[in-house]
Amino acid sequence: MNEFKIFVGGEFLTTDRPLKVINPYNGEIIGHTYLASSNELEKAIHRAQAVQKPMLDLPSFARYEALLKIAGLIKQERDEFARLLCLESAKPIRYALSEVDRAIQTFIVAAEESKRLPKEYIDLDWTQAGTGKEGLVKYFPIGLVAGISPFNFPLNLAAHKIAPAIASGCPIILKPSSTTPLSTLKLAQTISKTDLPKGAISVLPMDRETGNLLVTDQRFKLLTFTGSPEVGWKMKQDAGKKKIVLELGGNAAVIVTESAEIDLAAAKCVIGGFSYSGQVCIHAQRIYVQKEIFKVFSDKFIHAVKSLRVGDPLDSITDISAMIDETNAIRVEKWVNEAINEGASVLTGGLRKGSFYPPTVLTGTKSEMKVCALEVFGPVVTLEPYTSFKEVISLVNEGKFGLQAGVFTNDLKQVNQAFYQLEVGGVIINDVPTFRVDHMPYGGIKDSGFGREGVKYAIMEMMEPKILVKNR
Amino acid sequence: MNEFKIFVGGEFLTTDRPLKVINPYNGEIIGHTYLASSNELEKAIHRAQAVQKPMLDLPSFARYEALLKIAGLIKQERDEFARLLCLESAKPIRYALSEVDRAIQTFIVAAEESKRLPKEYIDLDWTQAGTGKEGLVKYFPIGLVAGISPFNFPLNLAAHKIAPAIASGCPIILKPSSTTPLSTLKLAQTISKTDLPKGAISVLPMDRETGNLLVTDQRFKLLTFTGSPEVGWKMKQDAGKKKIVLELGGNAAVIVTESAEIDLAAAKCVIGGFSYSGQVCIHAQRIYVQKEIFKVFSDKFIHAVKSLRVGDPLDSITDISAMIDETNAIRVEKWVNEAINEGASVLTGGLRKGSFYPPTVLTGTKSEMKVCALEVFGPVVTLEPYTSFKEVISLVNEGKFGLQAGVFTNDLKQVNQAFYQLEVGGVIINDVPTFRVDHMPYGGIKDSGFGREGVKYAIMEMMEPKILVKNR
Amino acid sequence: MNEFKIFVGGEFLTTDRPLKVINPYNGEIIGHTYLASSNELEKAIHRAQAVQKPMLDLPSFARYEALLKIAGLIKQERDEFARLLCLESAKPIRYALSEVDRAIQTFIVAAEESKRLPKEYIDLDWTQAGTGKEGLVKYFPIGLVAGISPFNFPLNLAAHKIAPAIASGCPIILKPSSTTPLSTLKLAQTISKTDLPKGAISVLPMDRETGNLLVTDQRFKLLTFTGSPEVGWKMKQDAGKKKIVLELGGNAAVIVTESAEIDLAAAKCVIGGFSYSGQVCIHAQRIYVQKEIFKVFSDKFIHAVKSLRVGDPLDSITDISAMIDETNAIRVEKWVNEAINEGASVLTGGLRKGSFYPPTVLTGTKSEMKVCALEVFGPVVTLEPYTSFKEVISLVNEGKFGLQAGVFTNDLKQVNQAFYQLEVGGVIINDVPTFRVDHMPYGGIKDSGFGREGVKYAIMEMMEPKILVKNR
Amino acid sequence: MNEFKIFVGGEFLTTDRPLKVINPYNGEIIGHTYLASSNELEKAIHRAQAVQKPMLDLPSFARYEALLKIAGLIKQERDEFARLLCLESAKPIRYALSEVDRAIQTFIVAAEESKRLPKEYIDLDWTQAGTGKEGLVKYFPIGLVAGISPFNFPLNLAAHKIAPAIASGCPIILKPSSTTPLSTLKLAQTISKTDLPKGAISVLPMDRETGNLLVTDQRFKLLTFTGSPEVGWKMKQDAGKKKIVLELGGNAAVIVTESAEIDLAAAKCVIGGFSYSGQVCIHAQRIYVQKEIFKVFSDKFIHAVKSLRVGDPLDSITDISAMIDETNAIRVEKWVNEAINEGASVLTGGLRKGSFYPPTVLTGTKSEMKVCALEVFGPVVTLEPYTSFKEVISLVNEGKFGLQAGVFTNDLKQVNQAFYQLEVGGVIINDVPTFRVDHMPYGGIKDSGFGREGVKYAIMEMMEPKILVKNR
Repeated sequence: MNEFKIFVGGEFLTTDRPLKVINPYNGEIIGHTYLASSNELEKAIHRAQAVQKPMLDLPSFARYEALLKIAGLIKQERDEFARLLCLESAKPIRYALSEVDRAIQTFIVAAEESKRLPKEYIDLDWTQAGTGKEGLVKYFPIGLVAGISPFNFPLNLAAHKIAPAIASGCPIILKPSSTTPLSTLKLAQTISKTDLPKGAISVLPMDRETGNLLVTDQRFKLLTFTGSPEVGWKMKQDAGKKKIVLELGGNAAVIVTESAEIDLAAAKCVIGGFSYSGQVCIHAQRIYVQKEIFKVFSDKFIHAVKSLRVGDPLDSITDISAMIDETNAIRVEKWVNEAINEGASVLTGGLRKGSFYPPTVLTGTKSEMKVCALEVFGPVVTLEPYTSFKEVISLVNEGKFGLQAGVFTNDLKQVNQAFYQLEVGGVIINDVPTFRVDHMPYGGIKDSGFGREGVKYAIMEMMEPKILVKNR
Repeated sequence: MNEFKIFVGGEFLTTDRPLKVINPYNGEIIGHTYLASSNELEKAIHRAQAVQKPMLDLPSFARYEALLKIAGLIKQERDEFARLLCLESAKPIRYALSEVDRAIQTFIVAAEESKRLPKEYIDLDWTQAGTGKEGLVKYFPIGLVAGISPFNFPLNLAAHKIAPAIASGCPIILKPSSTTPLSTLKLAQTISKTDLPKGAISVLPMDRETGNLLVTDQRFKLLTFTGSPEVGWKMKQDAGKKKIVLELGGNAAVIVTESAEIDLAAAKCVIGGFSYSGQVCIHAQRIYVQKEIFKVFSDKFIHAVKSLRVGDPLDSITDISAMIDETNAIRVEKWVNEAINEGASVLTGGLRKGSFYPPTVLTGTKSEMKVCALEVFGPVVTLEPYTSFKEVISLVNEGKFGLQAGVFTNDLKQVNQAFYQLEVGGVIINDVPTFRVDHMPYGGIKDSGFGREGVKYAIMEMMEPKILVKNR
Repeated sequence: MNEFKIFVGGEFLTTDRPLKVINPYNGEIIGHTYLASSNELEKAIHRAQAVQKPMLDLPSFARYEALLKIAGLIKQERDEFARLLCLESAKPIRYALSEVDRAIQTFIVAAEESKRLPKEYIDLDWTQAGTGKEGLVKYFPIGLVAGISPFNFPLNLAAHKIAPAIASGCPIILKPSSTTPLSTLKLAQTISKTDLPKGAISVLPMDRETGNLLVTDQRFKLLTFTGSPEVGWKMKQDAGKKKIVLELGGNAAVIVTESAEIDLAAAKCVIGGFSYSGQVCIHAQRIYVQKEIFKVFSDKFIHAVKSLRVGDPLDSITDISAMIDETNAIRVEKWVNEAINEGASVLTGGLRKGSFYPPTVLTGTKSEMKVCALEVFGPVVTLEPYTSFKEVISLVNEGKFGLQAGVFTNDLKQVNQAFYQLEVGGVIINDVPTFRVDHMPYGGIKDSGFGREGVKYAIMEMMEPKILVKNR
Repeated sequence: MNEFKIFVGGEFLTTDRPLKVINPYNGEIIGHTYLASSNELEKAIHRAQAVQKPMLDLPSFARYEALLKIAGLIKQERDEFARLLCLESAKPIRYALSEVDRAIQTFIVAAEESKRLPKEYIDLDWTQAGTGKEGLVKYFPIGLVAGISPFNFPLNLAAHKIAPAIASGCPIILKPSSTTPLSTLKLAQTISKTDLPKGAISVLPMDRETGNLLVTDQRFKLLTFTGSPEVGWKMKQDAGKKKIVLELGGNAAVIVTESAEIDLAAAKCVIGGFSYSGQVCIHAQRIYVQKEIFKVFSDKFIHAVKSLRVGDPLDSITDISAMIDETNAIRVEKWVNEAINEGASVLTGGLRKGSFYPPTVLTGTKSEMKVCALEVFGPVVTLEPYTSFKEVISLVNEGKFGLQAGVFTNDLKQVNQAFYQLEVGGVIINDVPTFRVDHMPYGGIKDSGFGREGVKYAIMEMMEPKILVKNR
């Protein structure tokens, strides 16, 4: 059985609290690692603090080369990374490979951005008081960063915290999800092969109590959390003086207008709605279709959903597999049943089997139903007709979330209205809200998040401006 | 009779070569000024060179305040400026007022940009060779600037050369059009009331021979010319080591697609086609209308053209008045007749009366006709149907010019195609190519120009980067 | 007696809780206003919410013109504003006039920045996944802003919250200091003369309990607070989901090196140390002088401090007057006495008289003394020799604050070391840490602050990026 | 014997005009290639024009990957490239390897910049006229580029034209120096292994007559030339409508001030003065040393110059070898003798042997001497004392060139004066003017150049802005 030691400030260690990792698809143990205690955390913090100055002093080519080296090493082991991801998360192998590719890209972009950290050079003599003076603004690393990453993209969402930290010169201690810690620890092995100062990065699986120290310990200057809204907003209150970035979820919507390319829209919605069983922050949960084309769209869409291939995530043709655990599958089942009881109809769906929940499309739902109002984080999509664009904008804006939205249209005015009026962090034209490339600014408003990721933007969150006022 | 002395390095002077200025509408002499000889030019150059260092040393608030003061003084005399413009150019007073407002805006924007001159602060340690080094890039004034401005916007196009020169710290010697020099000289009076170093700005009407020294004299580091293509491109060859910016003309086109708002498009096209008798660089000379809506558009458009009010430019309801001189009116008449002889039809038009040429719309034209292929610079518009968007893109791209183009559409794909495929400096959606605001980048490609104006962009042309490589 | 009504969403109102405002110099009542209750606050919130959309929809010229109009109106009443400031805060009139000038500048800069709000246009096709896509990033107003401003710069620090709010399109409710609310309310009168949507700005003096609603009410999306560290950091914990910006204080230091121009340094340190009795966030509290020049510097400095003219703040030659209240004067007296008891010597100083505390310079202090370690916010300065530049960097970095630092030097290496090693938000070369111009990024690290002000930077804090992903 | 075919729009061809390439060190023929005639040039132009659209349409990842692939392939053959460089140019192998590394870096930087091409997103509603409008500014490839590169850095200066052309999407036809064409043709072999559209790049050795077509043919939209001032400025006059970038030479100066680290300065000056026998555009030709330290500096410098190891360029310890040809060595000899005859003294030097000229240091020179006033482009350096910093600034600014200058100082004021007052494109603090990293803006003012290189800046020269004005 595979053992993955935890990565404590440059050193791979075991602890007395082993953590078994299970394949959600078949329940087999695929490996084990260890839970860090506050001892290991303390050691990691000390080492991180010790390398703050060396990290700041790294020339940009050193950060660049380290980041590129990590990207290169992941690429070399692309298949192994994907297989591990697949095993620990039941993510179908095609999607797992795509996640590995994105993680590679995340490190490449961070490498490039590490040479282009924000800097400004400004005149200060806008009034008599500043005569003869000019300013240089340089952004410095904010200090020790705590990162918490979720189970659904264990590799790439860890990369989105670690890569910017390296680029900006911040030491980071990352807590991966206890369900899927192995690919992140494999990433740590990769990182340990670089010349970065030992201690700059730690990867520590922790129980909730120890993990909470990442929130409360004032030696951390930034906490960057990706996970559920409830947990995230609570952390903000407990974070003390530190800065916080929250990447939470939502109930992202798609609008399919009368000028949409219907085949494209239907195909994209299947992916946005069911890839990784909807366990995606920007899962296309709600689909609104202009009523004139509702029937046509619905037929195509439902047909495609029914064609999704269910199976072993290791099988390259599998589209959909088990959810992360039975608890979540049961929760989704409950929400769907609740919706049905309150009047919703099932366009396609089926029975839960253990941790597997079949791709399900509901219609006739109401905004207050959990499948609409909350983050379903499962393979469930609602499909509803709408009349006017104005109306559908309101529908999308209902509720407390605001991450991304997709709009299929060829109408210029609708594009403008969508951009100006949709209360989200990103409006995706002619694609699902699930669209993300790793260098774009990413994050939600309302209850969906606080701050931004996307490599350059994540770096910015990890830095503090300092101005040098000098004579000219 | 009004006398306007010429502005020679801070001093208002007369010469022994008086220049009479005539109202094109009624042939009356409205004032006089003087032609500078090479003596005055030499004096202006000496004074300009003498203030290069003081100009460079001005704190940004001094440049800012001088530019704002000029804007404020023009505003105070808005009506007088407009009246003078109107008299010397036969520009209808409504448009003259609008030109004055734009000149005010040009100086305001330059004031603001003078505090935001380009500056960069960059890491240089991208390789071992740059370890420990960083760079500051500051843009310095390029040196003495020669400007040549045309008759059609005597105030605002002079402003587009003078205001950036002040903002960037370059002394400038400007030659206004000999036909319409008075409003520019009135601007010089305004400038003389600021605290700018005497010598920083000169405004010298000149004959062609003296003016040519602006092209050939190597003490000028930049020549910025607005005028006709033939003259401009010849200047480029004669300019020696100096930099050159050319703002030339074109035969700008409009596309009216099937998704256009036809009333809007027709109304805008009347303005784009006939304001100031088409004597505008971005005159909407060619209108292409999708064949399905051609008839509807044509009816509305021709009706509106026929409703244009002809008359004395000083009259506030006048839409269209005399052209700048009879020579040009005769030229336009010839081109129209030539087109008719070769098969074009007149949708509306009439007979030339002296320097007045009536608003004319032709159809059934061919690309090779002068009214299509050359810059008509008169109140003549061609109106033609087209079938597909692809076809009309080709039509617009025919010929040697490429300034701006207008596209009336609500179709997202057409917007993209227009932006990527039209060979012009600016694509204007849902407006005529005649659209320009003074801070946007403005200029043509192909034979329509070289370099860009628009305050920030004109400033950029007037500056040279210098890097300071320093230790960090 | 002067009555100043409170400004509730566009309306000037009275409440049943009058608030008397007293001249700290002579104890006379100079006017009165009113404390808002939760009723007025609720009304202000409702009106603010109602104008969110109109504010967003304002074209940039409307925001620009409103901001410029405010600047112009303040300029017209420059003397009245200064007199009011002087009376309510005992700020010497020279400094009060300078504060008014800075407030004017703050609004002018905000006007200009309102036309230059951050926007990005980026390629998204960095990988196959983004083929054919590009992104527009526009920054949208974050929503309703709560501002809390302090007594020491009642006009300009209110301006630093209100002007960016207008520029960014955020409605704002501002709580001025209850000690010095009048100049802020006079500013509100000015604002009410613009065409901004009624409700966009409210200025409400409040007691602590009502004011606390600005922290806890979740309808506010941003709280921007300028004040004391204790209060500020507590607010961060109570702020819930909203964003927070804290501009707190510090114990700013000056370093005078052997290559300094001593006369300049001494003169600047007098201003940095004693202007407005040191009641300034970036008060030059600690002066470190290289030991070789300590004696020379000290003689010049103490001589100049002794020459400061004490008196009525309305007198134009007054350098220093009463502190804001006797409580604070007593606190300062205690801290000084404590320092003396623990071994410090007084180089110049004297006895407290009521709320007046004389300019005091201590030497022989220790880092742990309150006059060193805490924010003295009074006319007290410590003056100590140091040996090496490395040592003095450590001394400055001691303690929990990090706002700005001044370094008098002509040594390039020292400039670099200071910039890279001083733990502050701003390093001011050849000037005191008290240097600030209103468009520069301003704010502290460590316990001195969270986020940045300085018009462009404050605007940035008030905005959220939204990306439009579109086809190209 | 090595044959290198020429690279004509994607195809490797021979012509009937073979061109022998000779090792300047020993006169041996090291290989041969071919001179292109106007036939091959015409073929290259046609193919280039045919791929303009495909080049524009390349997604950024395709340009990125092609550029990275070229960098990677050069890296794989690093030694072969260096050996070829060494053989064809007599550049000592250490420097040849360094040139190869820089060429790799040039392609890497271009790869990264190809994803970050300039783009702007701006508000247009600064006045009523722009209400509801906003602008997107995208930079498009300027069109077909002609490049001419010199013998002294045959690989990296070709890279500085080809890499930006690929990044910006412009097809390019490059004429390498006929003396050193082989490494550029080897680069072409590398380029041919990418997926770039065939025809995008051609590398054609030509005689002067054919080469002149690059200047005069109007199908080229940009000519970018690196070479001698006389040739360059003549090209500008003959260039017709095309844009031109000139990277010419100079007589770069170094200032060694009293606060300099003398050992560092002396060591750097040896490299700046004698690397590749001074055949470098930014060769440190004139060294000015403050008189108080002149003797100390001079002793160290002359000692080090005398220690330079002369020999076979293939030998890894060789510092200096033959010049490019005997003609140039004779020219240098003449200039030195002329200087001696007019009063200069030789501090170190010796006799010319064929194409080898020994490292020579002169003192007692006058500004008018050719070794001072012209570009010596050989292993000759003048060493002179100066008194005041003001004086030395004047000395450096004398004459017609202005490329870069080096200043060894630790004095902040001198840094500022140097930056503001030296008439050059780059001021290098504490290093020689010979300092260049490949991403920094590089180029001269006065007679030293026109426009800028440095990857991002070269890309900018190859692009034209186009604005899309759209509704918001």
